[in-house]
Amino acid sequence: MTKTVPTGILYGLGIGPGDPGLVTVKAHSILTRVPVIAYPATLEGESMARKIVAPHLDDAANLERIEIAIPIPMVEERDPGREAYDAAAQEIAPHLNAGRDVAVLCLGDPFLYGSFMYLFTRLADTAQIEIVPGVSSLTAAAAAARLPLVGRNDSLAVIPAPLDDGEIIARINAHDSVAIIKLGRHLPRIRKLIESLGLEGEARYIERATMEGERAIALSAVGDDAATYFSMILLHRRGEATP
Amino acid sequence: MTKTVPTGILYGLGIGPGDPGLVTVKAHSILTRVPVIAYPATLEGESMARKIVAPHLDDAANLERIEIAIPIPMVEERDPGREAYDAAAQEIAPHLNAGRDVAVLCLGDPFLYGSFMYLFTRLADTAQIEIVPGVSSLTAAAAAARLPLVGRNDSLAVIPAPLDDGEIIARINAHDSVAIIKLGRHLPRIRKLIESLGLEGEARYIERATMEGERAIALSAVGDDAATYFSMILLHRRGEATP
Repeated sequence: MTKTVPTGILYGLGIGPGDPGLVTVKAHSILTRVPVIAYPATLEGESMARKIVAPHLDDAANLERIEIAIPIPMVEERDPGREAYDAAAQEIAPHLNAGRDVAVLCLGDPFLYGSFMYLFTRLADTAQIEIVPGVSSLTAAAAAARLPLVGRNDSLAVIPAPLDDGEIIARINAHDSVAIIKLGRHLPRIRKLIESLGLEGEARYIERATMEGERAIALSAVGDDAATYFSMILLHRRGEATP
Repeated sequence: MTKTVPTGILYGLGIGPGDPGLVTVKAHSILTRVPVIAYPATLEGESMARKIVAPHLDDAANLERIEIAIPIPMVEERDPGREAYDAAAQEIAPHLNAGRDVAVLCLGDPFLYGSFMYLFTRLADTAQIEIVPGVSSLTAAAAAARLPLVGRNDSLAVIPAPLDDGEIIARINAHDSVAIIKLGRHLPRIRKLIESLGLEGEARYIERATMEGERAIALSAVGDDAATYFSMILLHRRGEATP
């Protein structure tokens, strides 16, 4: 493939769990020089990712910057998300072809339940892509709960709450430490599963780790209506952190 | 407990997987102001953690800084490690009591297989401790392999290689994505296990992610003598990243 103009680099930019201080030095450097940023947003244009990096963008306030909001429908069906990422890929590609670097903001890490992977699969064949890993909400939640997640030869399972009861129970039973993510409306069901295993005393609920309004409490103290998008349950079955 | 002097803060400081750029802005800020840093080292005093943050320490080259190397015996028995952390806790405590903040450098994240948890358990009752999460080698390896780790409702297992064959096979079978860590001398055995499951074609080997000498290749292309301390295998059983 011959190119007359050097193409821009597409950055999958991990920006961490919420605290702007948990953006990496490398991500900060990229944010203060790229001419195009893109980020997931609500249909109304609100973007948590954009908010997290705002102080860093201000460090290069004079930079002329194009911003692309990617409106993601918050529904469980696949098709609306597919269309949003198709459209975003089409909006980003011309910037790359014109030699402009584009940073796509990703909450947490781009490849750990990050939406960037949907752009990655769409653009990997034609664009030069660099993944910049970020701090995950998983370890941010453990820090908020003051709960060492895994040590020594403990194994860890990360389990999305929408899975079936049987799948969740089997995975909990196979591991020492467990993180249950994407709680949302599944919280009451997950709580019952954990109770049925006799593990409620071991479970902690963490919400908005490193963000304003962070809380980390015993699962038993949480109301069934509590779960937000930024929440998870951490659970230790056994395992220990003392050498 | 009455204290006449404000005690120092003990930071469990995640410094990321190896690239100094993957240190967070918050960790950088702490590194350039704390009067005491501590870090794991070999018995000969070599410290990968100290090396990673060296450029950041240079940003405050005029700061008088006390350095505590924690010599960790690289053996599988528990007792030598126990003694090293006992001694380190005893060396750190007087600085905190004298009001000096102490940052303990942790490769990756302090609570995800991080050695900081051993100091945490020893000092949590008497010291004011703040955990600063860091970028994990897990997602750095996925980035190096250009391999989205988990998306949507995929589940993830992180499995230490020293576990028994049966425990490893059960955990691989229960998940969509798998990371096998702490390979060391277990690499030939783990490779055979993966072959016996017919999954060798899905497995990638990543070494020294984000460090000098990084490589990410098919597991089938790796020699049995290859595994270093900074290596892991990533494996996708099913799951997919396209919405």
